[in-house]
Amino acid sequence: MADDVDRTGGGTLGEFDIIARYFAPIATDKAALGLRDDAAILLISEGYELIATCDTLVEGVHFLANDPPVTVGYKALAVNLSDLTAKGARGYAYLLSLAVPHDTPESWFEGFASGLRDLQVESGICLVGGDTTASPGPKTITIAALGLVTHGHAVLRHGAKANDRLYVSGTIGDAYLGLRLLEDASLAKSWDLSEADTNYLTGRYRRPETRAGLVIALRNFAQAAIDVSDGLVLDTEKLATVSHAGAVIETARVPFSPAAQKALHRAPELLEAMIAGGDDYEIVAAVPETNAAAFEAEVRAKGAPVTLIGRIEGGREGVRVIGPDGAPLKLARKGFSHF
Amino acid sequence: MADDVDRTGGGTLGEFDIIARYFAPIATDKAALGLRDDAAILLISEGYELIATCDTLVEGVHFLANDPPVTVGYKALAVNLSDLTAKGARGYAYLLSLAVPHDTPESWFEGFASGLRDLQVESGICLVGGDTTASPGPKTITIAALGLVTHGHAVLRHGAKANDRLYVSGTIGDAYLGLRLLEDASLAKSWDLSEADTNYLTGRYRRPETRAGLVIALRNFAQAAIDVSDGLVLDTEKLATVSHAGAVIETARVPFSPAAQKALHRAPELLEAMIAGGDDYEIVAAVPETNAAAFEAEVRAKGAPVTLIGRIEGGREGVRVIGPDGAPLKLARKGFSHF
Repeated sequence: MADDVDRTGGGTLGEFDIIARYFAPIATDKAALGLRDDAAILLISEGYELIATCDTLVEGVHFLANDPPVTVGYKALAVNLSDLTAKGARGYAYLLSLAVPHDTPESWFEGFASGLRDLQVESGICLVGGDTTASPGPKTITIAALGLVTHGHAVLRHGAKANDRLYVSGTIGDAYLGLRLLEDASLAKSWDLSEADTNYLTGRYRRPETRAGLVIALRNFAQAAIDVSDGLVLDTEKLATVSHAGAVIETARVPFSPAAQKALHRAPELLEAMIAGGDDYEIVAAVPETNAAAFEAEVRAKGAPVTLIGRIEGGREGVRVIGPDGAPLKLARKGFSHF
Repeated sequence: MADDVDRTGGGTLGEFDIIARYFAPIATDKAALGLRDDAAILLISEGYELIATCDTLVEGVHFLANDPPVTVGYKALAVNLSDLTAKGARGYAYLLSLAVPHDTPESWFEGFASGLRDLQVESGICLVGGDTTASPGPKTITIAALGLVTHGHAVLRHGAKANDRLYVSGTIGDAYLGLRLLEDASLAKSWDLSEADTNYLTGRYRRPETRAGLVIALRNFAQAAIDVSDGLVLDTEKLATVSHAGAVIETARVPFSPAAQKALHRAPELLEAMIAGGDDYEIVAAVPETNAAAFEAEVRAKGAPVTLIGRIEGGREGVRVIGPDGAPLKLARKGFSHF
């Protein structure tokens, strides 16, 4: 078909070739119709609700031009799965839209698709459709993800109540530090980081965890949850605000990785940016005190690390941040917006 | 919040302001959670299948930088609805991803949202979520649309059989001519077009019809259907190929608007490009002969214009095009790919 078609981009590899070689092999769900149609057909079992979310990654904004395509693919899907996890939902199916320059090398598509496949295997979600189109750039990747949750059991961003305990998954600030290191490799020395530390932190920026182990614990025991894409403080504030409540975060409790602790030790001023930086994709959950023991037991059983970092407060005072010394911390910024 | 947030783009109007002012008012379905969450919750009634599709529009590829934002909004949604119509599905809900420069004026968002609203009112589909992110440009708009169809009744791209009649909705080639006129206004004179003709043709490029009136007729009587985004000949070939069949199109039967007929009269060489140009977003359907009378009666009753343009053939010979003189027409190109 390549000779019959007038292409905007004039790429040597046509849309159909790319789909057939790299995306059809990972579109194994029957709903995908082998990607030979322009829509997917999904059957939702009775008793389930469908959670729909979409996130876009723009080269130079959400990932770097020299990030390996395998991590770009993984991240594009991971940032959507973290939204589903926060809702207590399992990933079911997703649509992928790629707007990329016509001279994008075949190896990029190959790596990108293998990153998607890695996370499909981990999570059970499956590519079912999408669109590939030419763009002068930057590469712009949109995934619309659909998840399933039993009827009435979705965890929303609102719903937190005064005295709920605030938990966060994983560790905070790694992605911020990783991005800084990718932008300026000399910081590794200033922060006294080994090569392993640096690789760990840059890996956290490029390949977020999706915390699927939290899904059941959230659904059973949390009243509200959000994934941290724009910074721990700002996203906690969003959860509190739509819940018509305030929140307090104790920085002394915020979990930091060993590598991040090293950097913090050398440059304590990083603390503020780490709790207000983007791209963590960890989950913040508000859990009623009466559920706390059961929540902690369930996440322990699943090996999904969570840490108590504060609580929801009455009133509508936004987020109060308590510094390591116990005094209120005044932040220049609460978060990072990608717009 | 505007003062607390570090923005990639540094735009004066934040993501939250844009959502609150322009998108929350059109996200009236309960599933949207008022756009105050990062996901939508959809309940699919028993007995329905969900059709999922997504299409991306890139500025300079699918629309022009100086297209009015109201038509850009309308078109972004229309190109997705035409996919749902081709499946015999009604629009239910959609997610919108906008990757636009930070200095995009507020008036652009206002116009864009009003174009979406216009088509929401016409079609009953509703915005339920999305993502807004900064991009250096070009503006890149992705809509993931969800439609509903009764279980087992979706019309697919494959399924056409030898001797099926081929119908097309509306008129073909208007959008191709409209784009040419937008790129070179002097063509209006060469083609002997009035201002009204020119406005009609450019309007067809900017504001595709979504042919919702065809939904029931397709579901009840068609064996296969596709929307024409890459050219009548190429998209008909796609339908035939996945149906393991061939097709014949008689150009003497292909419907052209009065304005397009004027241009064709002055420049008969336009014919090939009109049947191989993109952006028509009309529907091609394969209808068994035994259903043809009922199909035609149903579309007449709905005021949805369709025209018989050819038939499906046995074998796997691709598409044969018969010229106006009855002889086979050899096309330099069969279609237009946006990649």
